[in-house]
Amino acid sequence: MNIDFTDEEKNGLYKAIFSRRDVRSNFTSEPIDDKTLSRVLNAAHHGPSVGFSQPWNFILIKDITTRKKIKESFDKEKERSSHIVQEPKKSKYLSLKLEGILDSALNICVTYDPSKFGPFVIGRSSIPETGIYSVCCAIQNLWLAARTEKVGMGWVSILSNEVLKQVLDIPEHVLPIAYLCLGHVSKFADKPDLQTLGWLPRLDLKDVVYFEKWNRTQDTMWEQIRNMIASNLDYA
Amino acid sequence: MNIDFTDEEKNGLYKAIFSRRDVRSNFTSEPIDDKTLSRVLNAAHHGPSVGFSQPWNFILIKDITTRKKIKESFDKEKERSSHIVQEPKKSKYLSLKLEGILDSALNICVTYDPSKFGPFVIGRSSIPETGIYSVCCAIQNLWLAARTEKVGMGWVSILSNEVLKQVLDIPEHVLPIAYLCLGHVSKFADKPDLQTLGWLPRLDLKDVVYFEKWNRTQDTMWEQIRNMIASNLDYA
Repeated sequence: MNIDFTDEEKNGLYKAIFSRRDVRSNFTSEPIDDKTLSRVLNAAHHGPSVGFSQPWNFILIKDITTRKKIKESFDKEKERSSHIVQEPKKSKYLSLKLEGILDSALNICVTYDPSKFGPFVIGRSSIPETGIYSVCCAIQNLWLAARTEKVGMGWVSILSNEVLKQVLDIPEHVLPIAYLCLGHVSKFADKPDLQTLGWLPRLDLKDVVYFEKWNRTQDTMWEQIRNMIASNLDYA
Repeated sequence: MNIDFTDEEKNGLYKAIFSRRDVRSNFTSEPIDDKTLSRVLNAAHHGPSVGFSQPWNFILIKDITTRKKIKESFDKEKERSSHIVQEPKKSKYLSLKLEGILDSALNICVTYDPSKFGPFVIGRSSIPETGIYSVCCAIQNLWLAARTEKVGMGWVSILSNEVLKQVLDIPEHVLPIAYLCLGHVSKFADKPDLQTLGWLPRLDLKDVVYFEKWNRTQDTMWEQIRNMIASNLDYA
Protein backbone atom coordinates (compact mmCIF):
# COMPACT_ATOMS: atom_id res chain seq x y z
CA MET A 1 0.00 0.00 0.00
CA ASN A 2 1.25 3.47 -0.91
CA ILE A 3 2.76 5.19 2.12
CA ASP A 4 1.44 8.59 0.97
CA PHE A 5 -1.99 10.07 1.46
CA THR A 6 -3.46 12.51 -1.05
CA ASP A 7 -4.69 15.79 0.40
CA GLU A 8 -8.28 14.66 0.00
CA GLU A 9 -7.64 11.31 1.68
CA LYS A 10 -5.93 13.08 4.56
CA ASN A 11 -8.77 15.56 4.71
CA GLY A 12 -11.18 12.63 4.95
CA LEU A 13 -9.53 11.40 8.13
CA TYR A 14 -9.47 14.83 9.77
CA LYS A 15 -13.04 15.55 8.66
CA ALA A 16 -14.18 12.31 10.30
CA ILE A 17 -12.32 13.20 13.49
CA PHE A 18 -13.62 16.77 13.73
CA SER A 19 -17.21 16.05 12.71
CA ARG A 20 -17.70 12.87 14.75
CA ARG A 21 -20.38 13.37 17.39
CA ASP A 22 -21.74 11.45 20.34
CA VAL A 23 -25.23 11.06 18.89
CA ARG A 24 -28.37 10.76 21.04
CA SER A 25 -31.03 12.16 18.72
CA ASN A 26 -31.95 12.87 15.10
CA PHE A 27 -31.97 9.15 14.27
CA THR A 28 -34.00 8.41 11.13
CA SER A 29 -35.92 5.20 10.37
CA GLU A 30 -33.52 4.23 7.57
CA PRO A 31 -31.92 0.87 8.38
CA ILE A 32 -28.15 0.37 8.22
CA ASP A 33 -27.51 -1.87 5.22
CA ASP A 34 -25.46 -5.01 5.75
CA LYS A 35 -22.53 -3.89 3.66
CA THR A 36 -22.17 -0.64 5.58
CA LEU A 37 -22.44 -2.48 8.87
CA SER A 38 -19.82 -5.01 7.77
CA ARG A 39 -17.47 -2.21 6.81
CA VAL A 40 -17.68 -0.41 10.15
CA LEU A 41 -17.28 -3.68 12.07
CA ASN A 42 -14.27 -4.54 9.95
CA ALA A 43 -12.81 -1.10 10.70
CA ALA A 44 -13.21 -1.82 14.41
CA HIS A 45 -11.64 -5.25 14.01
CA HIS A 46 -8.58 -3.55 12.49
CA GLY A 47 -7.97 -1.55 15.63
CA PRO A 48 -4.61 -1.91 17.36
CA SER A 49 -4.37 -4.54 20.07
CA VAL A 50 -1.73 -5.29 22.63
CA GLY A 51 0.25 -8.33 21.49
CA PHE A 52 -2.19 -8.64 18.54
CA SER A 53 -4.64 -10.20 21.01
CA GLN A 54 -7.79 -8.83 19.29
CA PRO A 55 -9.64 -9.20 22.59
CA TRP A 56 -12.92 -7.65 21.40
CA ASN A 57 -16.34 -9.05 20.57
CA PHE A 58 -19.29 -7.19 19.11
CA ILE A 59 -22.79 -8.23 20.12
CA LEU A 60 -25.27 -6.80 17.58
CA ILE A 61 -28.66 -6.14 19.13
CA LYS A 62 -31.97 -5.38 17.46
CA ASP A 63 -34.34 -7.27 19.75
CA ILE A 64 -36.68 -4.78 21.39
CA THR A 65 -37.18 -6.79 24.58
CA THR A 66 -33.45 -6.75 25.19
CA ARG A 67 -33.24 -3.05 24.48
CA LYS A 68 -36.06 -2.25 26.88
CA LYS A 69 -34.20 -4.03 29.66
CA ILE A 70 -31.08 -1.99 28.91
CA LYS A 71 -33.15 1.20 28.79
CA GLU A 72 -34.52 0.35 32.26
CA SER A 73 -30.97 0.10 33.55
CA PHE A 74 -30.20 3.48 32.00
CA ASP A 75 -33.23 5.12 33.63
CA LYS A 76 -32.33 3.67 37.01
CA GLU A 77 -28.67 4.69 36.81
CA LYS A 78 -29.52 8.19 35.58
CA GLU A 79 -31.91 8.73 38.44
CA ARG A 80 -29.37 7.35 40.91
CA SER A 81 -26.55 9.54 39.68
CA SER A 82 -28.72 12.68 39.76
CA HIS A 83 -28.57 12.59 43.55
CA ILE A 84 -24.90 13.51 43.51
CA VAL A 85 -25.44 16.70 41.47
CA GLN A 86 -26.54 19.96 43.07
CA GLU A 87 -29.22 22.26 41.68
CA PRO A 88 -29.41 24.03 39.26
CA LYS A 89 -27.17 21.53 37.46
CA LYS A 90 -29.31 18.63 38.67
CA SER A 91 -32.44 19.75 36.77
CA LYS A 92 -30.43 20.50 33.67
CA TYR A 93 -28.76 17.10 33.88
CA LEU A 94 -32.10 15.32 34.24
CA SER A 95 -33.49 17.17 31.21
CA LEU A 96 -30.68 16.04 28.88
CA LYS A 97 -31.29 13.31 26.32
CA LEU A 98 -28.36 10.98 26.90
CA GLU A 99 -29.18 7.83 24.93
CA GLY A 100 -30.86 6.52 21.79
CA ILE A 101 -31.31 2.91 22.87
CA LEU A 102 -34.82 2.46 21.48
CA ASP A 103 -34.83 5.02 18.66
CA SER A 104 -31.61 3.95 16.91
CA ALA A 105 -31.49 1.25 14.23
CA LEU A 106 -29.00 -0.91 16.06
CA ASN A 107 -27.32 -1.38 19.43
CA ILE A 108 -23.86 -2.91 19.80
CA CYS A 109 -22.28 -4.09 23.02
CA VAL A 110 -18.50 -4.24 22.73
CA THR A 111 -16.76 -6.55 25.17
CA TYR A 112 -13.26 -7.39 26.39
CA ASP A 113 -12.24 -11.03 26.74
CA PRO A 114 -8.87 -11.28 28.54
CA SER A 115 -8.71 -15.04 27.98
CA LYS A 116 -8.36 -14.71 24.20
CA PHE A 117 -4.92 -15.97 23.13
CA GLY A 118 -3.99 -15.87 26.82
CA PRO A 119 -2.76 -16.13 29.43
CA PHE A 120 0.53 -14.67 28.09
CA VAL A 121 -0.11 -11.78 25.74
CA ILE A 122 2.92 -9.77 24.60
CA GLY A 123 2.95 -6.36 26.26
CA ARG A 124 0.14 -7.06 28.70
CA SER A 125 2.11 -8.32 31.68
CA SER A 126 3.22 -5.04 33.21
CA ILE A 127 0.00 -3.11 32.63
CA PRO A 128 -2.87 -5.62 32.26
CA GLU A 129 -5.37 -2.82 31.50
CA THR A 130 -3.79 -2.39 28.06
CA GLY A 131 -6.11 -5.19 26.89
CA ILE A 132 -9.05 -2.93 27.70
CA TYR A 133 -7.32 0.02 26.03
CA SER A 134 -7.16 -2.02 22.81
CA VAL A 135 -10.92 -2.45 22.81
CA CYS A 136 -11.39 1.31 23.22
CA CYS A 137 -9.16 2.00 20.21
CA ALA A 138 -11.27 -0.43 18.15
CA ILE A 139 -14.39 1.43 19.25
CA GLN A 140 -12.93 4.72 18.03
CA ASN A 141 -12.26 3.11 14.64
CA LEU A 142 -15.90 2.02 14.56
CA TRP A 143 -17.06 5.52 15.49
CA LEU A 144 -15.02 7.24 12.78
CA ALA A 145 -15.99 4.70 10.12
CA ALA A 146 -19.65 5.13 11.04
CA ARG A 147 -19.29 8.89 10.64
CA THR A 148 -17.98 8.59 7.08
CA GLU A 149 -20.95 6.31 6.33
CA LYS A 150 -23.32 8.98 7.68
CA VAL A 151 -24.22 6.70 10.57
CA GLY A 152 -24.48 8.42 13.94
CA MET A 153 -23.20 6.63 17.00
CA GLY A 154 -23.73 7.29 20.68
CA TRP A 155 -21.91 5.67 23.58
CA VAL A 156 -24.24 5.03 26.52
CA SER A 157 -22.24 4.92 29.73
CA ILE A 158 -25.04 5.44 32.23
CA LEU A 159 -25.62 1.73 32.68
CA SER A 160 -24.95 -1.11 35.07
CA ASN A 161 -22.37 -3.55 33.74
CA GLU A 162 -23.96 -6.22 35.89
CA VAL A 163 -27.30 -5.74 34.12
CA LEU A 164 -25.56 -5.79 30.72
CA LYS A 165 -23.84 -9.07 31.56
CA GLN A 166 -27.04 -10.64 32.80
CA VAL A 167 -29.25 -9.49 29.91
CA LEU A 168 -26.72 -10.41 27.22
CA ASP A 169 -25.52 -13.70 28.79
CA ILE A 170 -21.97 -12.37 29.04
CA PRO A 171 -19.76 -14.76 31.06
CA GLU A 172 -18.12 -13.79 34.28
CA HIS A 173 -14.60 -13.29 32.92
CA VAL A 174 -15.71 -10.99 30.07
CA LEU A 175 -16.10 -7.25 30.64
CA PRO A 176 -18.59 -5.04 28.75
CA ILE A 177 -16.66 -1.96 27.63
CA ALA A 178 -19.22 -0.01 25.62
CA TYR A 179 -22.90 0.03 24.79
CA LEU A 180 -23.38 1.79 21.47
CA CYS A 181 -26.43 3.05 19.60
CA LEU A 182 -26.09 3.41 15.84
CA GLY A 183 -28.33 4.69 13.09
CA HIS A 184 -28.55 7.04 10.17
CA VAL A 185 -29.27 10.59 11.25
CA SER A 186 -30.89 13.64 9.71
CA LYS A 187 -27.93 15.77 10.76
CA PHE A 188 -24.74 15.83 12.77
CA ALA A 189 -24.43 18.67 15.27
CA ASP A 190 -21.69 21.22 14.57
CA LYS A 191 -20.35 20.92 18.10
CA PRO A 192 -20.71 18.50 21.02
CA ASP A 193 -24.12 18.97 22.69
CA LEU A 194 -22.59 19.65 26.11
CA GLN A 195 -20.48 22.42 24.59
CA THR A 196 -23.47 23.99 22.80
CA LEU A 197 -25.54 23.84 25.99
CA GLY A 198 -22.81 25.62 27.91
CA TRP A 199 -22.34 22.69 30.26
CA LEU A 200 -18.56 22.66 29.68
CA PRO A 201 -16.21 24.54 27.34
CA ARG A 202 -13.74 22.93 24.97
CA LEU A 203 -10.30 23.29 26.49
CA ASP A 204 -7.58 25.03 24.52
CA LEU A 205 -5.06 22.62 23.08
CA LYS A 206 -2.29 24.55 24.84
CA ASP A 207 -3.82 23.66 28.19
CA VAL A 208 -3.53 19.93 27.67
CA VAL A 209 0.02 19.84 26.30
CA TYR A 210 3.05 19.70 28.60
CA PHE A 211 6.74 19.66 27.76
CA GLU A 212 9.19 17.09 29.11
CA LYS A 213 7.49 16.81 32.53
CA TRP A 214 3.99 17.01 33.99
CA ASN A 215 2.67 20.56 34.28
CA ARG A 216 5.64 22.18 32.50
CA THR A 217 4.15 24.65 30.04
CA GLN A 218 7.32 26.59 29.21
CA ASP A 219 10.43 25.02 27.80
CA THR A 220 13.12 26.52 25.62
CA MET A 221 13.39 23.39 23.48
CA TRP A 222 9.67 23.60 22.76
CA GLU A 223 9.25 27.38 22.35
CA GLN A 224 8.13 27.28 18.74
CA ILE A 225 5.37 24.69 18.97
CA ARG A 226 4.18 26.16 22.26
CA ASN A 227 3.70 29.51 20.55
CA MET A 228 2.00 27.88 17.60
CA ILE A 229 -0.49 26.06 19.78
CA ALA A 230 -1.02 29.02 22.11
CA SER A 231 -1.66 31.55 19.37
CA ASN A 232 -4.18 29.23 17.75
CA LEU A 233 -2.46 29.39 14.40
CA ASP A 234 -4.22 27.31 11.84
CA TYR A 235 -2.80 23.88 12.52
CA ALA A 236 -5.91 22.04 11.44
CA MET B 1 -19.98 21.00 7.72
CA ASN B 2 -21.31 18.84 4.91
CA ILE B 3 -22.72 15.59 6.25
CA ASP B 4 -21.50 13.68 3.18
CA PHE B 5 -18.06 12.25 2.52
CA THR B 6 -16.71 11.91 -1.00
CA ASP B 7 -15.48 8.45 -1.95
CA GLU B 8 -11.89 9.64 -1.69
CA GLU B 9 -12.43 11.19 1.75
CA LYS B 10 -14.07 7.99 2.94
CA ASN B 11 -11.25 5.99 1.43
CA GLY B 12 -8.80 8.17 3.35
CA LEU B 13 -10.31 7.13 6.66
CA TYR B 14 -10.37 3.44 5.79
CA LYS B 15 -6.85 3.60 4.38
CA ALA B 16 -5.60 5.13 7.62
CA ILE B 17 -7.35 2.42 9.64
CA PHE B 18 -6.10 -0.51 7.55
CA SER B 19 -2.53 0.74 7.08
CA ARG B 20 -1.93 1.96 10.64
CA ARG B 21 0.82 -0.04 12.31
CA ASP B 22 2.30 -0.35 15.76
CA VAL B 23 5.75 0.90 14.76
CA ARG B 24 8.97 -0.17 16.53
CA SER B 25 11.51 0.20 13.74
CA ASN B 26 12.31 1.92 10.44
CA PHE B 27 12.34 5.35 12.09
CA THR B 28 14.27 7.92 10.02
CA SER B 29 16.19 10.92 11.36
CA GLU B 30 13.71 13.40 9.85
CA PRO B 31 12.19 15.50 12.63
CA ILE B 32 8.43 15.94 12.95
CA ASP B 33 7.71 19.55 12.02
CA ASP B 34 5.72 21.67 14.46
CA LYS B 35 2.69 22.06 12.24
CA THR B 36 2.37 18.31 11.72
CA LEU B 37 2.77 17.70 15.44
CA SER B 38 0.15 20.34 16.24
CA ARG B 39 -2.27 18.71 13.82
CA VAL B 40 -1.96 15.23 15.30
CA LEU B 41 -2.25 16.58 18.86
CA ASN B 42 -5.32 18.53 17.83
CA ALA B 43 -6.80 15.36 16.33
CA ALA B 44 -6.26 13.62 19.67
CA HIS B 45 -7.80 16.53 21.55
CA HIS B 46 -10.94 16.13 19.41
CA GLY B 47 -11.46 12.59 20.64
CA PRO B 48 -14.74 11.76 22.33
CA SER B 49 -14.86 12.13 26.09
CA VAL B 50 -17.42 11.09 28.65
CA GLY B 51 -19.39 14.17 29.71
CA PHE B 52 -17.04 16.27 27.51
CA SER B 53 -14.51 15.99 30.33
CA GLN B 54 -11.42 16.02 28.04
CA PRO B 55 -9.45 14.28 30.77
CA TRP B 56 -6.26 13.85 28.77
CA ASN B 57 -2.84 15.49 28.87
CA PHE B 58 0.04 14.98 26.48
CA ILE B 59 3.59 15.21 27.78
CA LEU B 60 5.96 15.70 24.84
CA ILE B 61 9.40 14.26 25.52
CA LYS B 62 12.64 14.74 23.63
CA ASP B 63 15.10 14.82 26.52
CA ILE B 64 17.48 11.91 26.18
CA THR B 65 18.10 11.49 29.91
CA THR B 66 14.38 11.03 30.48
CA ARG B 67 14.12 8.59 27.63
CA LYS B 68 17.01 6.50 28.92
CA LYS B 69 15.27 6.14 32.27
CA ILE B 70 12.10 4.97 30.51
CA LYS B 71 14.12 2.58 28.38
CA GLU B 72 15.62 1.10 31.56
CA SER B 73 12.12 0.44 32.86
CA PHE B 74 11.25 -1.25 29.56
CA ASP B 75 14.32 -3.51 29.72
CA LYS B 76 13.54 -4.49 33.28
CA GLU B 77 9.88 -5.21 32.62
CA LYS B 78 10.65 -7.17 29.46
CA GLU B 79 13.12 -9.35 31.30
CA ARG B 80 10.69 -9.81 34.17
CA SER B 81 7.78 -10.80 31.91
CA SER B 82 9.92 -13.28 29.96
CA HIS B 83 9.89 -15.59 32.98
CA ILE B 84 6.22 -16.32 32.50
CA VAL B 85 6.66 -17.55 28.91
CA GLN B 86 7.78 -21.09 28.10
CA GLU B 87 10.38 -21.99 25.48
CA PRO B 88 10.47 -21.88 22.48
CA LYS B 89 8.20 -18.81 22.71
CA LYS B 90 10.40 -17.27 25.38
CA SER B 91 13.46 -16.93 23.11
CA LYS B 92 11.33 -15.63 20.28
CA TYR B 93 9.72 -13.09 22.61
CA LEU B 94 13.09 -11.90 23.89
CA SER B 95 14.35 -11.45 20.31
CA LEU B 96 11.49 -9.16 19.28
CA LYS B 97 12.04 -5.41 18.96
CA LEU B 98 9.17 -3.99 20.96
CA GLU B 99 9.95 -0.29 21.36
CA GLY B 100 11.53 2.71 19.66
CA ILE B 101 12.06 4.88 22.73
CA LEU B 102 15.52 6.14 21.80
CA ASP B 103 15.41 5.89 18.01
CA SER B 104 12.15 7.78 17.41
CA ALA B 105 11.95 11.56 16.99
CA LEU B 106 9.56 12.06 19.86
CA ASN B 107 8.01 10.33 22.85
CA ILE B 108 4.58 11.25 24.20
CA CYS B 109 3.13 10.17 27.51
CA VAL B 110 -0.67 10.42 27.50
CA THR B 111 -2.29 10.68 30.90
CA TYR B 112 -5.74 10.54 32.50
CA ASP B 113 -6.71 13.16 35.07
CA PRO B 114 -10.01 12.19 36.74
CA SER B 115 -10.13 15.50 38.65
CA LYS B 116 -10.62 17.58 35.51
CA PHE B 117 -14.09 19.20 35.58
CA GLY B 118 -14.89 16.80 38.42
CA PRO B 119 -16.02 15.38 40.69
CA PHE B 120 -19.37 15.04 38.83
CA VAL B 121 -18.84 14.23 35.16
CA ILE B 122 -21.94 13.33 33.14
CA GLY B 123 -21.95 9.63 32.31
CA ARG B 124 -19.05 8.70 34.55
CA SER B 125 -20.89 7.81 37.76
CA SER B 126 -22.00 4.27 36.95
CA ILE B 127 -18.82 3.17 35.19
CA PRO B 128 -15.92 5.38 36.35
CA GLU B 129 -13.50 3.68 33.92
CA THR B 130 -15.21 5.48 31.01
CA GLY B 131 -12.90 8.41 31.76
CA ILE B 132 -9.95 6.19 30.90
CA TYR B 133 -11.77 4.89 27.81
CA SER B 134 -12.02 8.49 26.56
CA VAL B 135 -8.25 8.87 26.71
CA CYS B 136 -7.82 5.68 24.68
CA CYS B 137 -10.16 6.98 21.95
CA ALA B 138 -8.10 10.19 21.80
CA ILE B 139 -4.96 8.09 21.38
CA GLN B 140 -6.50 6.24 18.46
CA ASN B 141 -7.26 9.61 16.80
CA LEU B 142 -3.62 10.55 17.30
CA TRP B 143 -2.48 7.25 15.82
CA LEU B 144 -4.61 7.57 12.69
CA ALA B 145 -3.71 11.22 12.15
CA ALA B 146 -0.02 10.36 12.49
CA ARG B 147 -0.45 7.65 9.85
CA THR B 148 -1.88 10.10 7.30
CA GLU B 149 1.10 12.39 8.02
CA LYS B 150 3.47 9.47 7.34
CA VAL B 151 4.51 9.47 10.98
CA GLY B 152 4.86 6.04 12.53
CA MET B 153 3.72 5.52 16.10
CA GLY B 154 4.36 2.71 18.55
CA TRP B 155 2.65 2.16 21.90
CA VAL B 156 5.09 0.85 24.50
CA SER B 157 3.22 -1.08 27.16
CA ILE B 158 6.09 -3.01 28.69
CA LEU B 159 6.73 -0.36 31.34
CA SER B 160 6.16 0.37 34.99
CA ASN B 161 3.57 3.08 35.55
CA GLU B 162 5.27 3.85 38.84
CA VAL B 163 8.52 4.61 37.04
CA LEU B 164 6.68 6.75 34.47
CA LYS B 165 5.04 8.76 37.23
CA GLN B 166 8.29 9.27 39.07
CA VAL B 167 10.39 10.19 36.02
CA LEU B 168 7.78 12.56 34.56
CA ASP B 169 6.68 14.14 37.90
CA ILE B 170 3.12 12.90 37.38
CA PRO B 171 1.01 13.51 40.52
CA GLU B 172 -0.53 10.71 42.50
CA HIS B 173 -4.11 11.12 41.23
CA VAL B 174 -3.13 11.10 37.53
CA LEU B 175 -2.75 7.82 35.63
CA PRO B 176 -0.36 7.29 32.71
CA ILE B 177 -2.37 5.56 29.98
CA ALA B 178 0.10 5.31 27.11
CA TYR B 179 3.75 5.84 26.32
CA LEU B 180 4.10 6.53 22.60
CA CYS B 181 7.08 6.73 20.24
CA LEU B 182 6.60 8.81 17.10
CA GLY B 183 8.72 9.54 14.06
CA HIS B 184 8.82 9.52 10.31
CA VAL B 185 9.53 6.07 8.93
CA SER B 186 11.07 4.66 5.78
CA LYS B 187 8.11 2.30 5.38
CA PHE B 188 4.99 0.96 7.01
CA ALA B 189 4.74 -2.81 7.21
CA ASP B 190 1.93 -4.40 5.18
CA LYS B 191 0.73 -6.39 8.16
CA PRO B 192 1.21 -6.30 11.94
CA ASP B 193 4.67 -7.66 12.85
CA LEU B 194 3.25 -10.34 15.15
CA GLN B 195 1.06 -11.60 12.31
CA THR B 196 3.96 -11.68 9.83
CA LEU B 197 6.13 -13.52 12.35
CA GLY B 198 3.46 -16.14 12.84
CA TRP B 199 3.10 -15.30 16.52
CA LEU B 200 -0.69 -14.97 16.21
CA PRO B 201 -3.13 -15.02 13.27
CA ARG B 202 -5.66 -12.32 12.52
CA LEU B 203 -9.06 -13.58 13.61
CA ASP B 204 -11.87 -13.75 11.07
CA LEU B 205 -14.41 -10.99 11.52
CA LYS B 206 -17.15 -13.63 11.79
CA ASP B 207 -15.48 -15.01 14.91
CA VAL B 208 -15.74 -11.76 16.84
CA VAL B 209 -19.33 -10.88 15.96
CA TYR B 210 -22.28 -12.25 17.94
CA PHE B 211 -26.00 -11.73 17.42
CA GLU B 212 -28.36 -10.58 20.16
CA LYS B 213 -26.54 -12.48 22.95
CA TRP B 214 -23.00 -13.49 23.87
CA ASN B 215 -21.72 -16.44 21.84
CA ARG B 216 -24.77 -16.63 19.54
CA THR B 217 -23.38 -17.02 16.02
CA GLN B 218 -26.62 -18.05 14.27
CA ASP B 219 -29.76 -15.98 14.25
CA THR B 220 -32.55 -15.83 11.68
CA MET B 221 -32.85 -12.04 11.97
CA TRP B 222 -29.14 -11.73 11.16
CA GLU B 223 -28.78 -14.41 8.48
CA GLN B 224 -27.79 -12.08 5.68
CA ILE B 225 -24.99 -10.18 7.38
CA ARG B 226 -23.72 -13.36 9.00
CA ASN B 227 -23.32 -14.91 5.56
CA MET B 228 -21.71 -11.78 4.20
CA ILE B 229 -19.13 -11.69 6.96
CA ALA B 230 -18.54 -15.46 6.92
CA SER B 231 -18.03 -15.69 3.17
CA ASN B 232 -15.54 -12.84 3.25
CA LEU B 233 -17.39 -10.91 0.60
CA ASP B 234 -15.72 -7.66 -0.15
CA TYR B 235 -17.09 -5.42 2.54
CA ALA B 236 -14.00 -3.25 2.74
